[in-house]
Amino acid sequence: MTISRPSGQVKRRVERVRAGASFEEDDAVAAEEPLEIRLVWEEPEGIVRKRIAVTMRTPGNDFELAAGFLYGEGVIRAREDVIDIAYCPDEQGPQNFNIVQVTLAPGLGFDAARLERNFYTTSSCGVCGKASLEALEVQGCEALAAGFTVSREVISGLPDALRAAQAVFEETGGLHASGLFDREGRLRSLREDVGRHNALDKLIGDQLLQGNLSLEGRMVLLSGRASFELVQKALMARIPVVAAVGAPSSLAVELAESFGMTLIGFLKRDGFNIYTAPERVLR
Amino acid sequence: MTISRPSGQVKRRVERVRAGASFEEDDAVAAEEPLEIRLVWEEPEGIVRKRIAVTMRTPGNDFELAAGFLYGEGVIRAREDVIDIAYCPDEQGPQNFNIVQVTLAPGLGFDAARLERNFYTTSSCGVCGKASLEALEVQGCEALAAGFTVSREVISGLPDALRAAQAVFEETGGLHASGLFDREGRLRSLREDVGRHNALDKLIGDQLLQGNLSLEGRMVLLSGRASFELVQKALMARIPVVAAVGAPSSLAVELAESFGMTLIGFLKRDGFNIYTAPERVLR
Repeated sequence: MTISRPSGQVKRRVERVRAGASFEEDDAVAAEEPLEIRLVWEEPEGIVRKRIAVTMRTPGNDFELAAGFLYGEGVIRAREDVIDIAYCPDEQGPQNFNIVQVTLAPGLGFDAARLERNFYTTSSCGVCGKASLEALEVQGCEALAAGFTVSREVISGLPDALRAAQAVFEETGGLHASGLFDREGRLRSLREDVGRHNALDKLIGDQLLQGNLSLEGRMVLLSGRASFELVQKALMARIPVVAAVGAPSSLAVELAESFGMTLIGFLKRDGFNIYTAPERVLR
Repeated sequence: MTISRPSGQVKRRVERVRAGASFEEDDAVAAEEPLEIRLVWEEPEGIVRKRIAVTMRTPGNDFELAAGFLYGEGVIRAREDVIDIAYCPDEQGPQNFNIVQVTLAPGLGFDAARLERNFYTTSSCGVCGKASLEALEVQGCEALAAGFTVSREVISGLPDALRAAQAVFEETGGLHASGLFDREGRLRSLREDVGRHNALDKLIGDQLLQGNLSLEGRMVLLSGRASFELVQKALMARIPVVAAVGAPSSLAVELAESFGMTLIGFLKRDGFNIYTAPERVLR
């Protein structure tokens, strides 16, 4: 069986095959467990408790994950919207570290039906790309301001800075990372997870819980590819520059373009591609 | 704006930065669009139509994706369980290629409440890893038979065979792939998608719709990492060997171990790791 470690790893015995030979060895595997996010809020008829999502995640930073997820979905807008986050007792027994319960502030305007519809559809707001973009506008999402700029040299240095700080990745090779940087390229925060959306939720949730949600002066680096959902989360957090080590998807590019976000892909030490809003990148 | 191509790509103008210089160029980006899967079935009170999932996917092979998804969730077991799959007219207009409607065979025993609960929780069956494994046993999932074996040489050759066949990946760098191989290492089928779970759903759905669901003599190669959900889908399709170019997660390893699946990770030309059931891999 496996031994969980708080570092996000699990030790496993593995048979390594190399050039025809093979030997047994201990290996560190990235930990994956389901996390249920429960929401508690007041309705005129009384307190409502509802499971709103289950995500497969690497244990650790679970409160941040829950907060970041709810922020990305537009359920909460600030730290004050949450009055409590806690692991909660399961029906069958003691405290369950795979269930996080978030209690919303009384009077927080909140539409359970819309919420359910959204979560039900895995964060996608419409049934075509255009509808997905329009849904964000309807939610009140505005174009990003132009002020933030960053040099090419700083951007080129981001992957090395992220990798140097990635403790678990080096051992398991199995975690996605999201890094938050200032315009000088200093790493301000790093979160890792088996799910790339979880890594970004944890990063943004951490800022939210610290009351730091003015991310207009920050940029984010994603260790993998840039999908629609990741760009959407960064947009909700008002981050003006998103860089990815991997490729962006078509809808990620369209979303970035619609809201004036600078989207960078295939970021390596010796170069990168700018898909949208190149004016934020200085020579 | 973007031009959609049936190849799963979209052309975009991009600014490439290389060693300080920069130039504009056309770039191929992996296409991403939402797909809504609707289920139609008979209840004593009449016909029921219900949206059960929306996934962000690369357009193409959409019927296979819907069929594979439903198979992985245990909703359908064979081609005969489906009497129709079609794109369906949207409320507002003409046929919508982002909505696929699957009509189930009359009398197919089917619990809408359980289904909803499952989809609602993003394919995760419980709130801890152990519960997730047990839920599969409860669904009637049994251990895989021992018969299938494969040589080390064949396994080492899989990534090259997959990459050679990946048409879109070479251009966009943005698609995950799943390949189905026989025990001699011949590629039998390949599917690509921005979402790795979609690529595997398309692969398995294609086999299902062809009436080929005896995959006990096949193995699958995943171009990325092996998560719990991917191993679960392969297990539902009774595929005895799953190999991944990337790392497995802890819960993926536990699931493979519980059901006697051979799980291989970090597969490269010169070696790989065997996490579970190494007896299927011959010297």
